[in-house]
Amino acid sequence: MSNKYVLVINSGSSSLKFAVIDSQTGEAALTGLGECFGLEDSRMSWKYQGNKQEVSIVGEENHHQLAVKKLVDIVNEYNLTNDVIAIGHRIVHGGEKFTKTVQIDQQVLKDIESVKELAPLHAPANVIGIKAALEAFPSLPQFAVFDTAFHQTMPPKAYTGAIDKKLYDEYAIRRYGFHGTSHYFVSREAAKMINKPVDECSFISVHLGNGASVCAIKDGKSVDTSMGFTPLAGLMMGTRCGDLDPGIIEFLINKGWSAEKVFDTLNKKSGFLGVSGLTSDARGVLEAMEEGHEGAKLAFQVFTYRVAKYIGSYMVALDNLDGIIFTGGIGENSLPIRSEILNYLKIFGYKENAQADADARFGEEGIITTEDSPVAMVIPTNEEFVIAQESVALMK
Amino acid sequence: MSNKYVLVINSGSSSLKFAVIDSQTGEAALTGLGECFGLEDSRMSWKYQGNKQEVSIVGEENHHQLAVKKLVDIVNEYNLTNDVIAIGHRIVHGGEKFTKTVQIDQQVLKDIESVKELAPLHAPANVIGIKAALEAFPSLPQFAVFDTAFHQTMPPKAYTGAIDKKLYDEYAIRRYGFHGTSHYFVSREAAKMINKPVDECSFISVHLGNGASVCAIKDGKSVDTSMGFTPLAGLMMGTRCGDLDPGIIEFLINKGWSAEKVFDTLNKKSGFLGVSGLTSDARGVLEAMEEGHEGAKLAFQVFTYRVAKYIGSYMVALDNLDGIIFTGGIGENSLPIRSEILNYLKIFGYKENAQADADARFGEEGIITTEDSPVAMVIPTNEEFVIAQESVALMK
Repeated sequence: MSNKYVLVINSGSSSLKFAVIDSQTGEAALTGLGECFGLEDSRMSWKYQGNKQEVSIVGEENHHQLAVKKLVDIVNEYNLTNDVIAIGHRIVHGGEKFTKTVQIDQQVLKDIESVKELAPLHAPANVIGIKAALEAFPSLPQFAVFDTAFHQTMPPKAYTGAIDKKLYDEYAIRRYGFHGTSHYFVSREAAKMINKPVDECSFISVHLGNGASVCAIKDGKSVDTSMGFTPLAGLMMGTRCGDLDPGIIEFLINKGWSAEKVFDTLNKKSGFLGVSGLTSDARGVLEAMEEGHEGAKLAFQVFTYRVAKYIGSYMVALDNLDGIIFTGGIGENSLPIRSEILNYLKIFGYKENAQADADARFGEEGIITTEDSPVAMVIPTNEEFVIAQESVALMK
Repeated sequence: MSNKYVLVINSGSSSLKFAVIDSQTGEAALTGLGECFGLEDSRMSWKYQGNKQEVSIVGEENHHQLAVKKLVDIVNEYNLTNDVIAIGHRIVHGGEKFTKTVQIDQQVLKDIESVKELAPLHAPANVIGIKAALEAFPSLPQFAVFDTAFHQTMPPKAYTGAIDKKLYDEYAIRRYGFHGTSHYFVSREAAKMINKPVDECSFISVHLGNGASVCAIKDGKSVDTSMGFTPLAGLMMGTRCGDLDPGIIEFLINKGWSAEKVFDTLNKKSGFLGVSGLTSDARGVLEAMEEGHEGAKLAFQVFTYRVAKYIGSYMVALDNLDGIIFTGGIGENSLPIRSEILNYLKIFGYKENAQADADARFGEEGIITTEDSPVAMVIPTNEEFVIAQESVALMK
């Protein structure tokens, strides 16, 4: 076993995902997930060499801290300790401060804490994760990889809200964008696929998962993206509404709805779940659609139409386009959704290669358009690999 | 003087615009505006054969009613009474009920009143205007022309919000769109310009004024539009924000802002005014930009970029595109804004004909692209003419 392993930690508001990743191949030696933190059924499960285990997380202490302690035990148990050379943390929000991966020290930790206003659910969890890891692995260098950093190259015309500029001056309200690590990774892989230096490439990267976002990439850099100040903006998602007429919120509040009820509805009861009336899961929606469920069919139509509209809109941010990249759980696996989106793009000359599209699923990458068509491709994303690579790169 | 005149009334929340229009040529014999209703300086001005006059509106009675009485006096004064054969009302919101122009009777009046929830500022004013006009001109047939009607052909995938479907079931929350009369008119004129039956034409109609919206038109019918449940959605406007990350509203409310302050900011302090920090008027912004004002430059960039993105997005709603139509105060007159938008559309092959673009201003229509480019054109809008034509057509 090489000593090129990085422990990647993704500390969410009530969960902690982790993986021990080979920074050269991207292969995961160990993967795990702690979830339901703060609740009675708080637990942690992990997988090593094909074997899956699970334990409950019980105790008065903070569950994030307990989870990191358990993680130390697991890493020791499999004798991985000496092979792990760094820890990489996925950090949701870097504000305008962080434009790239940094090594964590006390100042960086303070700066990450200072962004907590912009990510009230995620930033505190990120900080707890870092502190627990610093305590548990005091001798290892630790790095912060920001979900917003890749988008810090957006020009002002893309990140400026069409709102009172005082909101930017006073509260830093602007477009930040998220999923940066994913858009970064798949654009690099796409450049390799078409044998062109990435800094000469323009792509539209379409990350479709439970969260979903589109990114316009020019000369390898993000120039626009559909998530905004928060991850609620842009595309329709599993339970999130995406872009919305703000007048709808005004109407509901005037109807007597509390702000809490409104935003609970827009964050947790909208998207695939809200339109279908059935489920937030795209697979469930597709299955129900095949069985003739009208709500599911409408959810499929609204979702694909909106993705296609975003792709059309981002073309104007680019001088040319080397490829449309599909990634994320839905983007990598859902043939009906990709086919429908490509069908909308006929007006731009796109033609699906049905066989190639059917083949590029379940982890397989590939170009899914015909030879006489502009290029669209599928690239499985691997955010953990980016976090591992960036961490090791900074050690040198 | 022919007896083909229609009195067109546009009754707003605190104003009343009117015109006596030749239903065959669209020429206005008389135009006028009552404004500041309910305030101390409530007044009415009008223009007849080049002469402008103004009076104060004073009295305890409702100012809309007083204004209609004054309007009767004016029409009598110029001996227009016998030439006016109908009255056409511009009605902002027809809900899902009204898909075309209708003659007003008691039932229609009730139905218009029933939509007032959807347009709380405008519907009551519309109703007052109709009632006052029915009283003042009891012998004339009156017609309601709806700003939403043209968009009632949108398919569900375009009008369905990516939100909990209960909001549609309970409150009829969906995309309605506005500016329908304008998009209808310019698409008909555009079809004539390219000598093609309108029901075989696909256009993207771009109405840029103090309010602004884009409409995708397929086979002469609206299939998508950027305004939504309310006129706050879509493009950046004079003082309105357009599409917005709903998470921004959640953030501000959590910061302690009242909903009233939030929506006052988004409706009245955003758009050109908010981004430039200067003025809601596009001409003022352009002038300041030429003098090097940074906020004005940013407002210009954000506005044009967003219009271009909408045009790109609406291409996916169409199988082909016969023309992009610019209209409205800004769309008809602002060369820098049109040039910048066309520049963004280079990726689709659009090339500006600089001379033709400079010529098509101040009421002149024309194709503003080169012969080897897809077509973009300027068409001055004339909503009053549509209202007059539709009213007369229904009389037959």
